[in-house]
Amino acid sequence: MSVRSMLARQLDPALREAPGLSPANWAVCGLIVAAMLVAVLETEPALRTGRETLFLAVEIGLTGLLALEYAVRVWVSVENPAYDGRLAYVRSPAAVFDLLTILVVLATAFGTEGFLLRLAMLLRVLRIARLGRFSKAFDAVAAAVASRSTELGLSVAFAGLLLLVSSAMLYLVEGAVQPESFGSIPRAMWWSVATLTTVGYGDVFPVTALGRVFAALTAITGIGLIAMPTGILASAFSDAFQAQRAAAERQDPGTETSERAES
Amino acid sequence: MSVRSMLARQLDPALREAPGLSPANWAVCGLIVAAMLVAVLETEPALRTGRETLFLAVEIGLTGLLALEYAVRVWVSVENPAYDGRLAYVRSPAAVFDLLTILVVLATAFGTEGFLLRLAMLLRVLRIARLGRFSKAFDAVAAAVASRSTELGLSVAFAGLLLLVSSAMLYLVEGAVQPESFGSIPRAMWWSVATLTTVGYGDVFPVTALGRVFAALTAITGIGLIAMPTGILASAFSDAFQAQRAAAERQDPGTETSERAES
Amino acid sequence: MSVRSMLARQLDPALREAPGLSPANWAVCGLIVAAMLVAVLETEPALRTGRETLFLAVEIGLTGLLALEYAVRVWVSVENPAYDGRLAYVRSPAAVFDLLTILVVLATAFGTEGFLLRLAMLLRVLRIARLGRFSKAFDAVAAAVASRSTELGLSVAFAGLLLLVSSAMLYLVEGAVQPESFGSIPRAMWWSVATLTTVGYGDVFPVTALGRVFAALTAITGIGLIAMPTGILASAFSDAFQAQRAAAERQDPGTETSERAES
Amino acid sequence: MSVRSMLARQLDPALREAPGLSPANWAVCGLIVAAMLVAVLETEPALRTGRETLFLAVEIGLTGLLALEYAVRVWVSVENPAYDGRLAYVRSPAAVFDLLTILVVLATAFGTEGFLLRLAMLLRVLRIARLGRFSKAFDAVAAAVASRSTELGLSVAFAGLLLLVSSAMLYLVEGAVQPESFGSIPRAMWWSVATLTTVGYGDVFPVTALGRVFAALTAITGIGLIAMPTGILASAFSDAFQAQRAAAERQDPGTETSERAES
Repeated sequence: MSVRSMLARQLDPALREAPGLSPANWAVCGLIVAAMLVAVLETEPALRTGRETLFLAVEIGLTGLLALEYAVRVWVSVENPAYDGRLAYVRSPAAVFDLLTILVVLATAFGTEGFLLRLAMLLRVLRIARLGRFSKAFDAVAAAVASRSTELGLSVAFAGLLLLVSSAMLYLVEGAVQPESFGSIPRAMWWSVATLTTVGYGDVFPVTALGRVFAALTAITGIGLIAMPTGILASAFSDAFQAQRAAAERQDPGTETSERAES
Repeated sequence: MSVRSMLARQLDPALREAPGLSPANWAVCGLIVAAMLVAVLETEPALRTGRETLFLAVEIGLTGLLALEYAVRVWVSVENPAYDGRLAYVRSPAAVFDLLTILVVLATAFGTEGFLLRLAMLLRVLRIARLGRFSKAFDAVAAAVASRSTELGLSVAFAGLLLLVSSAMLYLVEGAVQPESFGSIPRAMWWSVATLTTVGYGDVFPVTALGRVFAALTAITGIGLIAMPTGILASAFSDAFQAQRAAAERQDPGTETSERAES
Repeated sequence: MSVRSMLARQLDPALREAPGLSPANWAVCGLIVAAMLVAVLETEPALRTGRETLFLAVEIGLTGLLALEYAVRVWVSVENPAYDGRLAYVRSPAAVFDLLTILVVLATAFGTEGFLLRLAMLLRVLRIARLGRFSKAFDAVAAAVASRSTELGLSVAFAGLLLLVSSAMLYLVEGAVQPESFGSIPRAMWWSVATLTTVGYGDVFPVTALGRVFAALTAITGIGLIAMPTGILASAFSDAFQAQRAAAERQDPGTETSERAES
Repeated sequence: MSVRSMLARQLDPALREAPGLSPANWAVCGLIVAAMLVAVLETEPALRTGRETLFLAVEIGLTGLLALEYAVRVWVSVENPAYDGRLAYVRSPAAVFDLLTILVVLATAFGTEGFLLRLAMLLRVLRIARLGRFSKAFDAVAAAVASRSTELGLSVAFAGLLLLVSSAMLYLVEGAVQPESFGSIPRAMWWSVATLTTVGYGDVFPVTALGRVFAALTAITGIGLIAMPTGILASAFSDAFQAQRAAAERQDPGTETSERAES
């Protein structure tokens, strides 16, 4: 087998015969995560100060490796009959996206403002990982969430209504006492979100007796607000996994049959 | 088809043939949400100051559109045989409610005190949305919650008892040290609610060793207090969705049968 | 029917023919809750000061009514063949408990120290309510929790281990920097409980980088700690309600059969 | 029966005929927990100061008892045919581990630095308890978690992505205003973890309007982040317990059949 053919089997999941991610793709994922980590650490002055050259060298090295990976993928793309020549691969959405992320890293290597653009790199990890064993789990979770999207949307609508009502109550009750924190409904909403999600930073809180009564009611209702989507998702996952297992059983009736005979 | 008949099919869900909300009703919902948003933003001094005329103009415009919508609904109501003439529609609870919300907006346009009355407008969104695809989801969620109302009531009763016991304990232990925060049972309840709901603002907390032991017990029990209604709701949703799917299957036995054949 | 017989049917659930609580027992429950509420409000100096006589009068009145209720229960006890004369009823554990709670209220009417003893009164509400429709729900919830007691015990054991490990880590890392908050493992436990339960008062928190890394790990593990008992309880409730419904179906096979035909 | 044979039946679970833990093993577990508790309390200066000799005596006493237990286990090991003489037992991993924990306690008795090593002692409790009735529960919980490891891994991956995105947003928005708290992405991550887990210490929080909008979105997404693993675990536990019950039923078909006849 030629080197090109071997590399193609390593890098192109469509040509891979064994299940799971190939060692080369694991390495690429690791490379992207490492590049991400370096970009995160670089923003910390205590780490960057005095090590600017080191960070720049690491960035150039990692970007060079990603560029090399891109070049190799272009080179071996002719092994995959799905692409009609290397130009067809270069024009494919996946390859264009890969090139863009490399250009983004190059363009933002000298500053930290472009960090958010770099997050796009992580989508590559997602794309590669989807081809591994996470693919089925991803589909199951996505299908479960999608199957209850209307019910979850209803929960969000209830949450929004509750947010509005509790903000308005606290604005009316506490607005005059703490104008800085509750002087308008948008301001009271900051408190309301912190309370309904049970985060409770404690930077703003009611001080009047009536305000505390409404705050207590808001906090208690917030529990229901968490319990409702949790309950909906729990039931959705239960159904999705049952369906998945039933499908697996039809394909391979020998396994698990005894366990399901009673149910 | 006349303009009146066309408008009737757009505005009156009972006359609509296609499923879901009509474009006109989507627009009305959007209008109500926009009016709500303007009313919320208007309470913020940083936004209102210097823009009083702008806000007033927007309010008048939005209220005018809602009044126009009301007038059109009255005009086209004769297309629906359920109403015996326009006066019958005007007297119907839905139309009376619509008129009231418009009058409330007019009456409170010049101040912020009437904000809570305006929330009634959102009930219109709920009424319109109930006719769309949210209707079934709403029924399923409501039925699930209703089917476990006794168990959820029991959870609330336990929560109340726990609130009382933990407040009393902290009042006895911390009352003398922090009279401002724990000097009476109602005062200690503010701390107790913040702890049991795991909000934990941090404006009040025990400082004695014994107080912290009781607070730790309260916080740990609070987890069970959240887990119990969540578990009850999860099981209720699971049952409700299963029943709904079973009902859908009876009506349309062709679909999903394969998935359920094993279970 | 004599007055005594009528009162017996009202007060003694064993003699009542209709389901649910009798109006008289609802009134008794209300009386106890009112007495509880007065006792709670009485501890608040802002409410008590200047109203000592009023509170005392209300306490005497409520206690008088409870004493009257006790006397009536003794009087009508001969209607229930289960008691061999009034002395047998007076000696029964329920009646002794009732008398004790009245004596506790009398003994503590002039101070607030005995408040915790008064909580025993609420057990009477529980005892009366157990005879109503809450009885089945209470049994279902209790059975569900009991059926998973070993698994829930395991969760508690994991939580305890996690509490110990995270406290020990923070004690080692932050102990020297913040001796007041993390200077010993028992002190670090106060922070650990607040973090694992996601209460997060914010009175103590790590300030070193390493301390924050361990705290982040603790907080993330805390989510699993809440998810585990919630998941266990959700599955327990699901099973318990299914069993309860199946039992109800066997007794009354006409209802709900269609819904369960598919499953 | 000789004393050695009797002790062997008490200490070696493989020789025990009755189910559950033997009284002697309960005592050993209690001994380990007591030694742990003493080690925890010893770190608190308020308790240790002036009681150094007492703590040292208790430590020596407890360690002596654990050493005695080890010696007895070696002595009675010949009763178990699985070990080919006492030396075989001493060389077994379990016995080596037991000896190591005793040596650790001895080595660290005079300081508090070795506390973490002592936590290894608790693994002995786990090992002994696994042989009791907790064993089945432990297996069920572990199997349930393992069966959903890919889905739970996906949740963790989503959580990590969310952590990264929200930290990056807050760093960009609040970094200039609060450089101490949001001046780099790693610093913003401390806030992000506290928010996503809903702990919310309140030591850092956004102060700008835009920062609060992103923080609110983060907190709301954090609810989904808790709901997802909870839902996955709930469905996993439900399946695991159902399978366990079905297995129990096959072995002992007489019980619970009526309950499962409908399902």
